[in-house]
Amino acid sequence: MVVTLVHVTVRPDRVADFIEATRRNHEASVREPGNLRFDVLQSADDPARFILYEAYVDEAAAAAHKSTAHYAEWRDAVAGWMAGPRRGERYAGLFPSS
Amino acid sequence: MVVTLVHVTVRPDRVADFIEATRRNHEASVREPGNLRFDVLQSADDPARFILYEAYVDEAAAAAHKSTAHYAEWRDAVAGWMAGPRRGERYAGLFPSS
Repeated sequence: MVVTLVHVTVRPDRVADFIEATRRNHEASVREPGNLRFDVLQSADDPARFILYEAYVDEAAAAAHKSTAHYAEWRDAVAGWMAGPRRGERYAGLFPSS
Repeated sequence: MVVTLVHVTVRPDRVADFIEATRRNHEASVREPGNLRFDVLQSADDPARFILYEAYVDEAAAAAHKSTAHYAEWRDAVAGWMAGPRRGERYAGLFPSS
């Protein structure tokens, strides 16, 4: 399992827009071949901070996400709503082991 | 979905021990009522950094994890292996919505 945590901080006046755009990205992403999770998390301490928790079966499946239309639509939609650049962190998923 | 990200940095000589103890915690935790995910992640940049990604159906189920024998065994086993205190972050899981 290959995992990316995408950290996003959103302008406070665009939180609702961001949630709606990210819901659409979630719904399409979980239907990608090789997707295991695409969880959208909102910080309990700061409602403008989000994590997209994206897990795929392998690197190829993770990379393929970036070539989808729904990813491009999300990326372009949210570009002006973020308070700063988003940040991705890569992890190996040890368990579950498949 | 109620999510906790537990960040742990492990002493380099104890990484293998930590992985084995955390595997046991994972295997028992995913069988708890109300558990949705208990993913164990190892940083791609630093093999001594881990995240436990713990998702439960509600706060009660998340709290019940802390009263299990396998949680206590893990907590006590890893206490001397960490390079510093572990840090938990709480999130609301927006999507999937159930």
